[in-house]
Amino acid sequence: MTYEEARTLIEQTLPEKRFIHTLGVVETAERLALKYGENVEQARLAAMLHDYAKYIDREEMRRVVVDEPLDPLLLEFDDELLHAPVGAVLLDRAYDLDAAVVSAIKNHTTGEPGMSRLDQIIFVADAIEPNRNYPGVERLRETADASLEEAVVATLRQTIHHLLNKSVRIFPLTIETYNYFVNTP
Amino acid sequence: MTYEEARTLIEQTLPEKRFIHTLGVVETAERLALKYGENVEQARLAAMLHDYAKYIDREEMRRVVVDEPLDPLLLEFDDELLHAPVGAVLLDRAYDLDAAVVSAIKNHTTGEPGMSRLDQIIFVADAIEPNRNYPGVERLRETADASLEEAVVATLRQTIHHLLNKSVRIFPLTIETYNYFVNTP
Repeated sequence: MTYEEARTLIEQTLPEKRFIHTLGVVETAERLALKYGENVEQARLAAMLHDYAKYIDREEMRRVVVDEPLDPLLLEFDDELLHAPVGAVLLDRAYDLDAAVVSAIKNHTTGEPGMSRLDQIIFVADAIEPNRNYPGVERLRETADASLEEAVVATLRQTIHHLLNKSVRIFPLTIETYNYFVNTP
Repeated sequence: MTYEEARTLIEQTLPEKRFIHTLGVVETAERLALKYGENVEQARLAAMLHDYAKYIDREEMRRVVVDEPLDPLLLEFDDELLHAPVGAVLLDRAYDLDAAVVSAIKNHTTGEPGMSRLDQIIFVADAIEPNRNYPGVERLRETADASLEEAVVATLRQTIHHLLNKSVRIFPLTIETYNYFVNTP
């Protein structure tokens, strides 16, 4: 699948506001890929596709989890967790995509212990793209310019603080990813 | 084991500052047990014994984890996690103690999904006893007067925020306990 094909698909699939966010992730992922020496074409393609499944019907997403099968624990947590792994599955079934691109789409919400640098770039770009506006986002952007792994940790820290403050349950994989990347002896 | 026997043991085992903390936990646990209709004698005994293993040699604690065996994941995380389950094992081996008391000692640091009301009382009392002094402790004390389960969640929230801010890894059981007690649909 070429970037232009992906762009056409996503522009037709997502509402305008989400498409604008997506373009911000593409721009940021491209910059981070250049900065950290990762494959720019894969970064642009994964960024363009990362939210493909965002507006798919909840029941359809849950069916994909059961049929594939994906981790059944996903069914017990917030539906917001579904679109990343489900999008990866659906795109992988329908199009010819590098495994590295599919992985970055799959891991963009929770991360994964030991995830690749490309995965890290999409994970961080999603959190800091120029349309994002929340307390701490500027500091996160600075961290992303200094260290990709530090930016992964800072993004996870921000996410977990936010879930705690909203009294929302935390998906175990999010903690496993934080534990993996955080720098303690 | 009677409360007086436990008090003599702990006064001989712990340094003075930790013994003073322990007396604070006893006082608070007794108050919470009365308030929430739990067994006051078990609460006082568990509180008196909860930090029994706090100053046991690190290598000895790790041997207990291996020999018992306790969850081997404990060996991969901060040694601070060891004294609660190891203390429960050592006291249970050496003395005649109710299972409810042993459980409250075991779970006082991480908590456990579905832990008993007595476990919850020791878990919360440890965090709010009168000698504790940290940002947010007053609010936690008020929460403990309103709802025991809410106080468990608030204590875990406080702990996880603190670990995130220190860039320390988070033991999965702590998150499982938070997920269990947090009040979301």
